[in-house]
Amino acid sequence: MHITGGRHFLQIPGPTNVPDRVLRAMAAPTIDHRGPEFAELTKAVLAALGPVFGTSGPVVIYPSSGTGAWEAALVNTLSPGDRVLMSETGHFSTLWSELAGRLGLQVEVIPGDWRHGADPAEIGRRLAADRENTIKAVCVVHNETSTGVTSRVPDVRAAIDEAGHPALLLVDTISSLASIDYRHDEWGVDVTVAGSQKGLILPPGLGFNAVSEKAFAASRSAGLPRSYWDWAPMIEANARGFFPYTPGTNLLYGLREACAMLAEEGLPRVFARHQRHAAATRAAVRAWGLEVLCADEREHSGSLTAVLLPDGYDADEVRRVILEKFDMSLGAGLGRLAGKIFRIGHLGHFNDLTLAGTLGGVQMGLQLAGVPIKPGGVEAALEHLREAAS
Amino acid sequence: MHITGGRHFLQIPGPTNVPDRVLRAMAAPTIDHRGPEFAELTKAVLAALGPVFGTSGPVVIYPSSGTGAWEAALVNTLSPGDRVLMSETGHFSTLWSELAGRLGLQVEVIPGDWRHGADPAEIGRRLAADRENTIKAVCVVHNETSTGVTSRVPDVRAAIDEAGHPALLLVDTISSLASIDYRHDEWGVDVTVAGSQKGLILPPGLGFNAVSEKAFAASRSAGLPRSYWDWAPMIEANARGFFPYTPGTNLLYGLREACAMLAEEGLPRVFARHQRHAAATRAAVRAWGLEVLCADEREHSGSLTAVLLPDGYDADEVRRVILEKFDMSLGAGLGRLAGKIFRIGHLGHFNDLTLAGTLGGVQMGLQLAGVPIKPGGVEAALEHLREAAS
Amino acid sequence: MHITGGRHFLQIPGPTNVPDRVLRAMAAPTIDHRGPEFAELTKAVLAALGPVFGTSGPVVIYPSSGTGAWEAALVNTLSPGDRVLMSETGHFSTLWSELAGRLGLQVEVIPGDWRHGADPAEIGRRLAADRENTIKAVCVVHNETSTGVTSRVPDVRAAIDEAGHPALLLVDTISSLASIDYRHDEWGVDVTVAGSQKGLILPPGLGFNAVSEKAFAASRSAGLPRSYWDWAPMIEANARGFFPYTPGTNLLYGLREACAMLAEEGLPRVFARHQRHAAATRAAVRAWGLEVLCADEREHSGSLTAVLLPDGYDADEVRRVILEKFDMSLGAGLGRLAGKIFRIGHLGHFNDLTLAGTLGGVQMGLQLAGVPIKPGGVEAALEHLREAAS
Amino acid sequence: MHITGGRHFLQIPGPTNVPDRVLRAMAAPTIDHRGPEFAELTKAVLAALGPVFGTSGPVVIYPSSGTGAWEAALVNTLSPGDRVLMSETGHFSTLWSELAGRLGLQVEVIPGDWRHGADPAEIGRRLAADRENTIKAVCVVHNETSTGVTSRVPDVRAAIDEAGHPALLLVDTISSLASIDYRHDEWGVDVTVAGSQKGLILPPGLGFNAVSEKAFAASRSAGLPRSYWDWAPMIEANARGFFPYTPGTNLLYGLREACAMLAEEGLPRVFARHQRHAAATRAAVRAWGLEVLCADEREHSGSLTAVLLPDGYDADEVRRVILEKFDMSLGAGLGRLAGKIFRIGHLGHFNDLTLAGTLGGVQMGLQLAGVPIKPGGVEAALEHLREAAS
Repeated sequence: MHITGGRHFLQIPGPTNVPDRVLRAMAAPTIDHRGPEFAELTKAVLAALGPVFGTSGPVVIYPSSGTGAWEAALVNTLSPGDRVLMSETGHFSTLWSELAGRLGLQVEVIPGDWRHGADPAEIGRRLAADRENTIKAVCVVHNETSTGVTSRVPDVRAAIDEAGHPALLLVDTISSLASIDYRHDEWGVDVTVAGSQKGLILPPGLGFNAVSEKAFAASRSAGLPRSYWDWAPMIEANARGFFPYTPGTNLLYGLREACAMLAEEGLPRVFARHQRHAAATRAAVRAWGLEVLCADEREHSGSLTAVLLPDGYDADEVRRVILEKFDMSLGAGLGRLAGKIFRIGHLGHFNDLTLAGTLGGVQMGLQLAGVPIKPGGVEAALEHLREAAS
Repeated sequence: MHITGGRHFLQIPGPTNVPDRVLRAMAAPTIDHRGPEFAELTKAVLAALGPVFGTSGPVVIYPSSGTGAWEAALVNTLSPGDRVLMSETGHFSTLWSELAGRLGLQVEVIPGDWRHGADPAEIGRRLAADRENTIKAVCVVHNETSTGVTSRVPDVRAAIDEAGHPALLLVDTISSLASIDYRHDEWGVDVTVAGSQKGLILPPGLGFNAVSEKAFAASRSAGLPRSYWDWAPMIEANARGFFPYTPGTNLLYGLREACAMLAEEGLPRVFARHQRHAAATRAAVRAWGLEVLCADEREHSGSLTAVLLPDGYDADEVRRVILEKFDMSLGAGLGRLAGKIFRIGHLGHFNDLTLAGTLGGVQMGLQLAGVPIKPGGVEAALEHLREAAS
Repeated sequence: MHITGGRHFLQIPGPTNVPDRVLRAMAAPTIDHRGPEFAELTKAVLAALGPVFGTSGPVVIYPSSGTGAWEAALVNTLSPGDRVLMSETGHFSTLWSELAGRLGLQVEVIPGDWRHGADPAEIGRRLAADRENTIKAVCVVHNETSTGVTSRVPDVRAAIDEAGHPALLLVDTISSLASIDYRHDEWGVDVTVAGSQKGLILPPGLGFNAVSEKAFAASRSAGLPRSYWDWAPMIEANARGFFPYTPGTNLLYGLREACAMLAEEGLPRVFARHQRHAAATRAAVRAWGLEVLCADEREHSGSLTAVLLPDGYDADEVRRVILEKFDMSLGAGLGRLAGKIFRIGHLGHFNDLTLAGTLGGVQMGLQLAGVPIKPGGVEAALEHLREAAS
Repeated sequence: MHITGGRHFLQIPGPTNVPDRVLRAMAAPTIDHRGPEFAELTKAVLAALGPVFGTSGPVVIYPSSGTGAWEAALVNTLSPGDRVLMSETGHFSTLWSELAGRLGLQVEVIPGDWRHGADPAEIGRRLAADRENTIKAVCVVHNETSTGVTSRVPDVRAAIDEAGHPALLLVDTISSLASIDYRHDEWGVDVTVAGSQKGLILPPGLGFNAVSEKAFAASRSAGLPRSYWDWAPMIEANARGFFPYTPGTNLLYGLREACAMLAEEGLPRVFARHQRHAAATRAAVRAWGLEVLCADEREHSGSLTAVLLPDGYDADEVRRVILEKFDMSLGAGLGRLAGKIFRIGHLGHFNDLTLAGTLGGVQMGLQLAGVPIKPGGVEAALEHLREAAS
């Protein structure tokens, strides 16, 4: 480990910095998962999660990564050979498509340039063309972690409605939940997929599905084999405060504490904070004379910002210099973006001064790595933050 | 929560008491799961796990419960409609059978009385009768957590070999690994299923599969749909120190520490300690004039002891009294044993004096609940422990 | 470190086992000791301490051991050459006398046999004989940690009153506070000396003085040089929520949590629990045929029990065996009792089952060390606990 | 508590940010302070402390604040009425002088303007004039925490030597030890006073005295009454791994870990890091057009920087704005500097990016509070850091 004094800056777009309040909560002794104290924990956690997802329906918690929650959303609602419509927004939407294919689904992907969100108009066109309703689900990644682009879920919903199509709407909020405004019920989402390790300010290890009535109804006839991911026994046992198999007790302690912290700050303030940091970061990037990857002003992510390097410069070399000299981890370009971008995570347990430190490190690292930038990026960001604070 | 001063006695047969060394290790900040420090962590953990499973082959780690690891063992090795031979040893073998059925396998269960382990002779007979090798896997629960009976896995292996049958041998060691002597390679097991929350002295949240070469070969043609549980990308990524999706970082910190503690004590001493505590517990039960559920002297569990109550007495009432009066959690009778037995967990982070406290609480609780017992159970256990210590 | 699996049994009469709730509270980040959040912490802690000492007057908190609090009690109230009357109850009363002598006080010690508490009648006689009131303070150790004898403070107070003597009453409650019934105001104590590491279930590092009005008045003219220990600036700064020098922030976090735990259980129940465990321990000792050191039935300690060994047996050898074989620390005989006794601490974060484990270890250790005992000690203790629970 | 998301910035000049490695180490269970495991801890800690103080002689550890260690240095070496020569460098040198007076010493203070360190020439003159060697000790604060000025201890030593005067040299390193180059033996210091809560990256609660042979010899005849602070029993007990009274066990765990972290980074790199951050901070202050309080280029502190505000601006208002808007604590002006300065702590567990965040917050806060500054302070600091990193 490189030693520089002080705390490591973990500014990848997740897993994020876990507050020590949460880490301490997780360090409590494990309790009997069949006892009365556990039932209280379960009920408290489930009650606190509803507002975070924006739902009054069930939220299912798995001991799993977010990838597991992707799989759960599909195996509970679909049958072998079902058609699903996916939008290529980047590396993670592609992984989800591939996962769907491996499960035996017939995946139709709307191609994308990795600089835009899902295209509601095109989704609408595909559905409208699907006269026989063979498309069973539309899958969208709300915030594409590999690109820093946020898809406009309400517009996707409107497109589906306009097409009058019965397909389910499945949305991945792994890097947006509790960071970017999101409303499962209000936006008519059928399954919301999430994970613990981003805006929920927990370590990785929990996956989530928020489930609409329509999705739950679909699960009754869905034919993909499932057991671990099956919603029904989960929802049934949860009602009594328990789980059908041993849950991740200590992560649930952490989740209770994380939800308490989100409630103390208030979700609207949490969302505003993320937007402020994203805007300040873009101010810095533009002052440096660099380009933000996201190409649509309506779709900038509140969670992370992907920075395009000029041709001939290696983003991984910039990241290497920053890790070595300033003990900060940034996100790499993934898939086709490898080496071309780096990603600044500004989500989770994060504030104005941490952002100032983060951008200070990026600026110095760009310079040390020989990337030609204009001065003044950090100052531009500070100006933005100062105005927001006044 | 009932308040009695002092520390809760968590003497269910898992999740077990997590050492505070492990809890503190888990409370470290989350790190970049794609960075060099993480790769070192992965490699250290995998190297330490091999001896625990008794294997030089790959061990796959899932963010999941043990139930997930059951599912993983099946979906990686089998195809829809495959026949599997399972032995009814208790509640958990039954759950595994049901899970297999839900995945679309054809499950053949050798019935049992929940007081014995899997019957090697009967397994041999079934395999010998299967002339066309339609049985693809034999599944055995090494230590049946619901009954305190340990199946004789080497004898099962010998029966398979004697029958000259090519079926895979899948073994659940969820409540035996790192508590009861177990040897994946030496005993010719093809998939060993395990979880973090018992002998591995961690909170729940990690599932494991140790994989033989034969099992891995079978996975290449196995037809059950799989993605999250797929071994191949895991093993490939692990070789470089990484995972195909976000792993449970903080539980891995804990796993590294737990493996270090097991290595410090030494597995042979760990096993001997569990046998000593099991024998002392049986000495107490018999001195009280009660019956141990396990009916075969060769099959007593080192991890837990299930105690049969005389007719007309409610084991759950005994447990309730003990929880209320002495702040100790014991395991309930599950399934058909509900109310008839209680289970004393004596596995994991546990020592002679903790056993003395545990048995003291059981003895007082039995008396307070009005169960007719003879005095002297604790003294009998202490005598056993003292002789072992001398 | 000897490795036996499981948690070390720390059954010395303090420092005691710190609850992990308290340890986790202490692990929070240090905060600005001059900021508003700190002022709230101070006020909360001071408000919670009053009931623990049984006082509505000031309680001063030092970053120090209990020894520092002894020194503070003396230097705040006395002048060089002042006479103080002390009662030899054991090793710790002797250390306090010696400390007083080193500070330049004239110490008069009433001799004792280390098996009884302070003698109220003799104190009364000495004071009555002191016609010119040259004795300025009477010092008593409430619970003598080296012997397990609790002095009868209300009787000492009565003796002083009967003699009509103006001497201050200074009481050491280091191993009794929050374990044995104690009432600073009601009993007319002038300075109560305490430490964090026993009944207050904290690590060592904080010393306390509860101060009566009479004692505070005396401090205005007391001539011993003092600065660090000076009450006046402490009490003045505390009123605003601060300290005259940097306080032990993280121990104060722990203190807040420890006071909350004491309040949850309720002091009367805390005291009753300690009495129950002390009585059960004596039942065990007597069943073994051994002798409790404390020779007066009115003076048995609720915090610890000192056990006398028969002539020719070495108590330190018994302790060594118990530490090596059962990973339990017991208290040694101190001073003139070295080798003759061992001390069982049953105070602080402790419950019935922990006592059962503790006594189980003592019984086995006595046997292994070859001390001739009768069987049945643990059973006798369990019988006592069971009756108390019914 | 103001809620802004993210971690509080504790940038007072101590207590400093405690690394979570150290907090976790402190959260281990308390152990028997008379047992063999404790003796190993003591010896390990004492061995690690020597290099930190730059001494091969004894270092005494008190459960106390740094103020206690001030008192200890005086009561061990001096007698009532002894003359001591002190240099007024700021608020803390003044407090130490006052403490000395309260102990009955005759204190002679060389006045100062709170912008310079101790004046070696004047000290030399005073000693030279003291023909009868009535001055028994020279006391100097190495780094004056209230002003950010570091006195030149080697020059003070040289002045004493030149005067041929036998006075002891007592040096307070509370805010310099393990941050600013310091060498007890090489510089001929007789008593070094320190505390745990600054460069030693621990919570407050431990005080230290490093003791020269000459100082220890002086302690044999020193006449101030003492017991708690007495070196002799400490040094004697420490040799066996123990303490004469209950030590602060859990802080010692933390100290062992903190010393390990300092050794991993290496003291020379630790010192260089602090100098780099101090220089970068001055670059920012000057770019803003503000004045650093320290008036001598040779005496800038590596631990903190005090910033003078223009007339008419209230430094406490700036601090209030920064705390409220950016959740950062800065040091207030103390004593005669109240309201005129604020102090930026850049010591302890701290790195380049944390400094960037800190200075970002200061810059924005100054602007929001209406203090007229020039832009570019943060950029100036970043430029300094970048050059140092290249």
